[in-house]
Amino acid sequence: MGANIFSEKHQITFYETDVTNTVTPAMLVNMIILASEDQTVSLGVGADTVAKQGIGWVVTQYKMDITRLPKQGETIEVSTQATCYNRYFAFREFWVHDSAGHECVHVESVWVTMNHESRKIVTIPDNIIAPFNSEEVKMIPRLSRPKRLTEDDQLMTKQYRVRYFDIDGNGHVNNARYFDWLLDALPMSFLTRHNLTSINIRFENEVQYHHIVTSEATLMTDIPDAIVTKHRITMENGDVATEAEFHWEPIKHSV
Amino acid sequence: MGANIFSEKHQITFYETDVTNTVTPAMLVNMIILASEDQTVSLGVGADTVAKQGIGWVVTQYKMDITRLPKQGETIEVSTQATCYNRYFAFREFWVHDSAGHECVHVESVWVTMNHESRKIVTIPDNIIAPFNSEEVKMIPRLSRPKRLTEDDQLMTKQYRVRYFDIDGNGHVNNARYFDWLLDALPMSFLTRHNLTSINIRFENEVQYHHIVTSEATLMTDIPDAIVTKHRITMENGDVATEAEFHWEPIKHSV
Repeated sequence: MGANIFSEKHQITFYETDVTNTVTPAMLVNMIILASEDQTVSLGVGADTVAKQGIGWVVTQYKMDITRLPKQGETIEVSTQATCYNRYFAFREFWVHDSAGHECVHVESVWVTMNHESRKIVTIPDNIIAPFNSEEVKMIPRLSRPKRLTEDDQLMTKQYRVRYFDIDGNGHVNNARYFDWLLDALPMSFLTRHNLTSINIRFENEVQYHHIVTSEATLMTDIPDAIVTKHRITMENGDVATEAEFHWEPIKHSV
Repeated sequence: MGANIFSEKHQITFYETDVTNTVTPAMLVNMIILASEDQTVSLGVGADTVAKQGIGWVVTQYKMDITRLPKQGETIEVSTQATCYNRYFAFREFWVHDSAGHECVHVESVWVTMNHESRKIVTIPDNIIAPFNSEEVKMIPRLSRPKRLTEDDQLMTKQYRVRYFDIDGNGHVNNARYFDWLLDALPMSFLTRHNLTSINIRFENEVQYHHIVTSEATLMTDIPDAIVTKHRITMENGDVATEAEFHWEPIKHSV
């Protein structure tokens, strides 16, 4: 039933992991995007083909449920499905499974097609969506917005200048880089003692080479039980580039 | 003849390349280190085993001759050989070949064993070097020092704060990160119009989390023909972390 599923395997290298030898969220996003690009190529509608129509796919939101983030040396299987779409939005899911077949991560994402020149959203052309066998729907599944930072929040703040190697083949900052900026705003003592359990990230505005961005984060203290951090990346003119919400649990150390 | 050669293949992903879809020097270094680590594991003297003796391998210098840097999607073969060693230094070579068997990169490197606690160099223990079948020599091949920045040089300068995701499983900044800092000091207009033909980099002092480092670069104008940039990374106390020299050639655009 439904859209084609595409899968590929990947062995996690040391340079895709952090100080705890766990895959970084940025690299995990790179891996799922790779699977998605490999699927488009296998169906004859890769980025080059799409670019000939003057457009490109752009992701606007990811929502990730994380059972556990895989470790260095593990071979994971990344699967993806262009689940459904309407006139303007496509809904794509990803799954990461470990070698025992257990689900590590499930990702829901929302995509649009953007005109390369005008940077405006255009109707998704039939010929580039048809090969996925996706279901055409009135409304794609609605992903909740990340919780917003408020004026009362005590902010942890760091600034980043976009570097040459942050720019990818499209001439823009690769979305995955935002995860490093978002998470680096939190203290190392927090990052090494908590596991991510879910991520909700929305991309609002594109960042370019040499831009200075500000990454702001706060730990929500007004909610019982759950450990939640709220995040925002803003540009020099005050525009929001990204909003995100991360959920965490303390790492339980085995004896 | 000589030491064992270890080889492994790797397909270059989009997230290992730059705006020109060419593998980044940082990622290339990660790939050769991966081959070297995989060789040590295959010989039963991986990092875990070595760490049990309270020591670790540390690279002090890389010298790379580059015919061409591979592109996104290419499958390369990375080969390595622990060529020779003496009491304190080990000399390791790497080769990167493309799928047609042409040599893309040849790397010579110098390694020492360092005590984890004292951070001092120790005699290379017999049991961790023996499995490589390396030649024991009086003197390992001498690699020239990178050309030094002088007081008269006009410097291009950028600062970097070490981020959480710059830290690897050893708790230090991964050497590969230095390449991003070194090269990002040069203008994008230079980086996108020149190919690297050789690299000489020497690591002097370790950089830690939250350090602020300064990357300084100059284009040598007092030499005919060759295009050479000289680089230095300094720490807040003025100590030199890294010195490097890069050679370049203009990219010839085919019609």
